[in-house]
Amino acid sequence: MTDAFDKCRLPEAGALAAAGLYPYYLPVEERPGGGEVVVGGRRVLMAGSNDYLALADDPRLKEAGAEALRRLGSGNSGSRVLNGTLALHETLERELAAFLGHEAAMVVSTGYQANLALSALFGPRDVLFADRRIHASLIDAARLGQAALRRYRHNDMTQLAGMLEAADPGVGAIVLTEGMFSVDGDLCDLPGIAKLAAHHGARVVLDSAHDAGLLGAGGRGAAEHHGLQSAVDVQTVTFSKCFGTLGGAVAGPRHVVHYLRHSARSALFSASLPPACTAAALAALDIVRTEPERRRAVMFTAERLRSGLVALGFGIAPGGTPTVSLRVGDRLTCCRFWAGLLEEGVLANVMLPPAVPEGEAMIRLSVTAAHTGGQVDRILGAVATVAACLGLLPGT
Amino acid sequence: MTDAFDKCRLPEAGALAAAGLYPYYLPVEERPGGGEVVVGGRRVLMAGSNDYLALADDPRLKEAGAEALRRLGSGNSGSRVLNGTLALHETLERELAAFLGHEAAMVVSTGYQANLALSALFGPRDVLFADRRIHASLIDAARLGQAALRRYRHNDMTQLAGMLEAADPGVGAIVLTEGMFSVDGDLCDLPGIAKLAAHHGARVVLDSAHDAGLLGAGGRGAAEHHGLQSAVDVQTVTFSKCFGTLGGAVAGPRHVVHYLRHSARSALFSASLPPACTAAALAALDIVRTEPERRRAVMFTAERLRSGLVALGFGIAPGGTPTVSLRVGDRLTCCRFWAGLLEEGVLANVMLPPAVPEGEAMIRLSVTAAHTGGQVDRILGAVATVAACLGLLPGT
Repeated sequence: MTDAFDKCRLPEAGALAAAGLYPYYLPVEERPGGGEVVVGGRRVLMAGSNDYLALADDPRLKEAGAEALRRLGSGNSGSRVLNGTLALHETLERELAAFLGHEAAMVVSTGYQANLALSALFGPRDVLFADRRIHASLIDAARLGQAALRRYRHNDMTQLAGMLEAADPGVGAIVLTEGMFSVDGDLCDLPGIAKLAAHHGARVVLDSAHDAGLLGAGGRGAAEHHGLQSAVDVQTVTFSKCFGTLGGAVAGPRHVVHYLRHSARSALFSASLPPACTAAALAALDIVRTEPERRRAVMFTAERLRSGLVALGFGIAPGGTPTVSLRVGDRLTCCRFWAGLLEEGVLANVMLPPAVPEGEAMIRLSVTAAHTGGQVDRILGAVATVAACLGLLPGT
Repeated sequence: MTDAFDKCRLPEAGALAAAGLYPYYLPVEERPGGGEVVVGGRRVLMAGSNDYLALADDPRLKEAGAEALRRLGSGNSGSRVLNGTLALHETLERELAAFLGHEAAMVVSTGYQANLALSALFGPRDVLFADRRIHASLIDAARLGQAALRRYRHNDMTQLAGMLEAADPGVGAIVLTEGMFSVDGDLCDLPGIAKLAAHHGARVVLDSAHDAGLLGAGGRGAAEHHGLQSAVDVQTVTFSKCFGTLGGAVAGPRHVVHYLRHSARSALFSASLPPACTAAALAALDIVRTEPERRRAVMFTAERLRSGLVALGFGIAPGGTPTVSLRVGDRLTCCRFWAGLLEEGVLANVMLPPAVPEGEAMIRLSVTAAHTGGQVDRILGAVATVAACLGLLPGT
């Protein structure tokens, strides 16, 4: 027969590596803190992390994690449903639900699996209306679910309205979006979605991976930011961004969460979140609730980065969040941009197809509450230098 | 429109709970060690864990985890591909690959996601031949992949031979099986599969979730047990069973692992394994390599459990492994069995549909290297008492 592994040849990655431009899987050797990491024996500025509140190296998370690790062990050796539930998981679920303003929450082992869990809600008689820019994990949830999938242009409420209008009234309608989009850091049009969903009797499912902990006066995410918490029926969060560890959760009405506990395969058939991560997430939640100054600090720093990029002449998506992307277009130029930034001591992310559409390769930058104004200026200086070299600055 | 959440009513779970027979999500309060846990304020024997080598509360894993947590933080705040790779991940990958006898390995954040990663290998011109009893995570991988799926009866080499014979020679053929099956603890017919795969030019993908660390003289799993390591092209493992923490890996030829690093969505779009889990898995791997007596201890204990169950008159699947299931049939009787065992101080697992076929509800028992002969006798005594009460013992 044909060899099923013939597909596994990727000449491009080898060519990039040979040219010193391979932008992936760069190993971090140490994390000295202060918004910096050590790679290749050298301290560089980490401008590609989702640790917005700078909690992943907070001593309180480390201490809570280490205590739980010593007391309860390094893992739970089974799924939540059978033998892997800890009282600590239940505490985290109660506190998360109360914080997010939902009746109940279910904790799973990754944010990716929290989104996959939604697939159990996407039944054969449902239609899923999803923003075109939703995260890959939500696309995978749609693939694993049984609902028909219709995608509307990014934040295009006119198109969404038309789709809802045209839908068979016998179906269950679900609108699926991210609160804060991960590539451009812009926000969903929740006011528009809430209005349309109320009018058509559709459910709203919101992925708050990037915005829970960060947005809203209380850090409850995009829904709180828009003053529309009651318009969101089900909300997913991850602990690997603002909450400084690993894991995720689905929050919503009690009967829906109960149903997911018995139906969501990514929850049923996977080992539960280890004690250290569970305790760290609880400690992070406490900090999110009690230290709003962290949110203000990172948003202030984000504004400095954003306005600096605009001053350099870059067109960036609105949003005011700590994540911002620079359109480069061509893959190879984008890899050169990334390598140039690293040379200048700034570690950014590249977003190449298929993560973004073909021809829309981009550099993604993000800042955290640990970054100082001086560090943002270093990022801006590096961007200016490298972009000028590559002829990417407007007017150069 | 119809409410998409109408599907979320589960009257059965409420009825079971009202009757005190709800067998799921029982919270563990403390883990005092010695094969016991505290639930409802009471110490009970844990006979439903996958911690076969009893490493989840080993001081060496705890120490390694706590050290990494303090040094590198409570999480990595991003995916492996962009900003979440640690030098520690690469060390674990090298050591795992060498241990398992593969060229390379890719570490991901859960065993479930290690299996989902396989979906990138299941292309539109491939046919996947899978054992009917493969784990839910492998089914989900097949759903996310593009290959046609054909399922053969459990370990039925005649049916698999017929399917391979009938396949279009232009397709890429992949045989997918577990090494040790999770419900009955029996082994796959790897000699039969290896022979057929070699004859037909099919690739063999083996899920060693339950057998890596446990089976084979060196603990390399079912392939080593059968003396057929070279017949396995790609192997997945999890760290939440023998390795005492969370996470998983895919091991195989260098170019295949490299391809997966760039194509597997469960790896690309999920935050990486935290320092504590990575360090704990490395510590566990060292113990797996250097303390074969743990494998011997649990297999000896398993034999005592299995022969005791046979002496009570239960028909159990062959295999000699630490996991064994008792067919009960009816759901409610099965829940009563579970509740009766708990009353007797033994915490077992229930396997109800849809985890098993309708009408095949069962009780699953497992032992670990921490259990003594006396504890196995307590399990057997509890099983005898409860099964007699329920009229389930042959001749009663």
